Amino acid sequence: MPHLLDVPGTVRWIRRDGLDTVLAGLVRYLESDLLRWEEFEKVPRLASHTPHGVIELMPITDRELYSFKYVNGHPHNPARGLQTVTAFGVLADVDNGYPILFAEMTLLTALRTAAMSALAARELARPGARVHALIGAGSQAEFQALAMRTVLGIEELRVMDLDAAAVEKVRRNLEPLGFRVHAAATVEEALEGADVVTTCTADKARAAVLHREQVRPGMHLNAIGGDCPGKTELDPAILEDARVVVEYAPQTRIEGEIQQLPEDFEVTELWRILAGDASGRTSDQEVTVLDSVGFALGDFSALRCALDATSGTDLLGWIDMIADPDDPKDLFSLVTERRPAP
Amino acid sequence: MPHLLDVPGTVRWIRRDGLDTVLAGLVRYLESDLLRWEEFEKVPRLASHTPHGVIELMPITDRELYSFKYVNGHPHNPARGLQTVTAFGVLADVDNGYPILFAEMTLLTALRTAAMSALAARELARPGARVHALIGAGSQAEFQALAMRTVLGIEELRVMDLDAAAVEKVRRNLEPLGFRVHAAATVEEALEGADVVTTCTADKARAAVLHREQVRPGMHLNAIGGDCPGKTELDPAILEDARVVVEYAPQTRIEGEIQQLPEDFEVTELWRILAGDASGRTSDQEVTVLDSVGFALGDFSALRCALDATSGTDLLGWIDMIADPDDPKDLFSLVTERRPAP
Repeated sequence: MPHLLDVPGTVRWIRRDGLDTVLAGLVRYLESDLLRWEEFEKVPRLASHTPHGVIELMPITDRELYSFKYVNGHPHNPARGLQTVTAFGVLADVDNGYPILFAEMTLLTALRTAAMSALAARELARPGARVHALIGAGSQAEFQALAMRTVLGIEELRVMDLDAAAVEKVRRNLEPLGFRVHAAATVEEALEGADVVTTCTADKARAAVLHREQVRPGMHLNAIGGDCPGKTELDPAILEDARVVVEYAPQTRIEGEIQQLPEDFEVTELWRILAGDASGRTSDQEVTVLDSVGFALGDFSALRCALDATSGTDLLGWIDMIADPDDPKDLFSLVTERRPAP
Repeated sequence: MPHLLDVPGTVRWIRRDGLDTVLAGLVRYLESDLLRWEEFEKVPRLASHTPHGVIELMPITDRELYSFKYVNGHPHNPARGLQTVTAFGVLADVDNGYPILFAEMTLLTALRTAAMSALAARELARPGARVHALIGAGSQAEFQALAMRTVLGIEELRVMDLDAAAVEKVRRNLEPLGFRVHAAATVEEALEGADVVTTCTADKARAAVLHREQVRPGMHLNAIGGDCPGKTELDPAILEDARVVVEYAPQTRIEGEIQQLPEDFEVTELWRILAGDASGRTSDQEVTVLDSVGFALGDFSALRCALDATSGTDLLGWIDMIADPDDPKDLFSLVTERRPAP
């Protein structure tokens, strides 16, 4: 029977180990999987778009394990008490095709997105980065802040959101954890002294949360909100003058900030930097951008990490989702009257 | 919280209503969804192939509901005590992207595959068909036999399989339900007097379970085992001389028997016959073929049918897969220490 890591199980895992430890673990799993990039069978995710949102399936396999995630993106959800993004995923055994683990992935997506951002910032942010600007204070904000601290040690946050209550929420959540949180009234104010800038807004529109003239030499931009056709956050002039790093180019050209640029615009896949095939930041003056849309490999790593961390504990339950007749060719026996009812 | 219809719930539903009633219901849901074919956003399923099997994701949406199924196909599984095909699926609300139902679909796939076969046979088999030959006596066999009886009233079965124990299993399962089961030693023997011939074998190979000279005028062939690139059951000469009906041509050209024929080989999608856009059988002499590979619409119908049939009963459980913070922008609140552990 497959394992189940539901929401309570995930919450208890995170509380047992602590968020910093969980994030550091995810960064390790992610880096180790990115370093074997060419072993994976990769496809752009399969998206079903509606005017108000998107539902996506994100499969990937290394030919031993297979994973997929179901994830939605509905920017109008919070106004009716629902989350913009919810997700769940499955890890399966390629050899026999049976699922191994069903897992909630709303929390796991927030964690793995932050881990990917942090891993990229480790390679791309200026050494000694001290200030992290957060444009957008929604569900992802605290996870991004914590992951950047895990990897870069940044405790100074400048947070801007059109929704002041969301900024207040970030302060309330993060000050007890040792962050200094400055609520900024404008994007300009948030950017003051910022070494790393995370943009994470939800509008399904061609927005320009950041303009070219606001970007200063040496900044690292961690752009995670532009992740659908027609949903971008950065002035394209920023990208033209920057070093742009992506997770998986074929998908990012469809969904990322670079959808605004020609098909042949030069980008670097992050795994190449980790593998030493491409350089990270090359000067203190360079502007670097992680154009992050979220890629299936991050979910694969997150599911592996979650399973290893909870294996053999009562955090994992079971889910009776696979019919299991005594004779594998006798599926029918399960529904005939000759067996006692379950 | 989404509903859960697990294996015990599905088994109890089928026993409560009886297989004939469940199959008749599935045929109705399937027909009603096929009649609104053009409302659906359709894509060929996303398959990940390995030498020993395949894992597939099958999404579809009518813009109000979205469904997908995870299904594997591993022909060597039964030899190690596992099923060839296992599956589960999810039904979701397109408006907000939230899952509504998680369901086992190993049983549901067998049922909906049989319902699709029966619906096609209703339009394509000769009036007064009395004998059903089953080539392949694996997990699907009994479901196929029952669905054909539900729609055509056929109680006479001629069953052939290289595995004699599998044929015996079919006899054991179906004779108590009123079928007359003849165990055939060869394909030729199984075909004697057959009006409807179901081929359902599992080898991932270019097999020719049926040859052109074995097919007699007026037969309806229900070919369901050829469903992957490189996995076929029929001599292509059979198809060239027959009326070939498919579920969804773009997918069947990749996966079905017609993968052996040129891209422009003429086929009819089943929904057109149901809608009166195309004719069913046109003469007593015509050979008709349903080249069935399994299409996502059948799963969509099956999930709707299962949810309606079990709604409000204790057959449905719940699965805590969607994180649900009080403030939808405060996902982080779930994992901070300030809340009691779940």
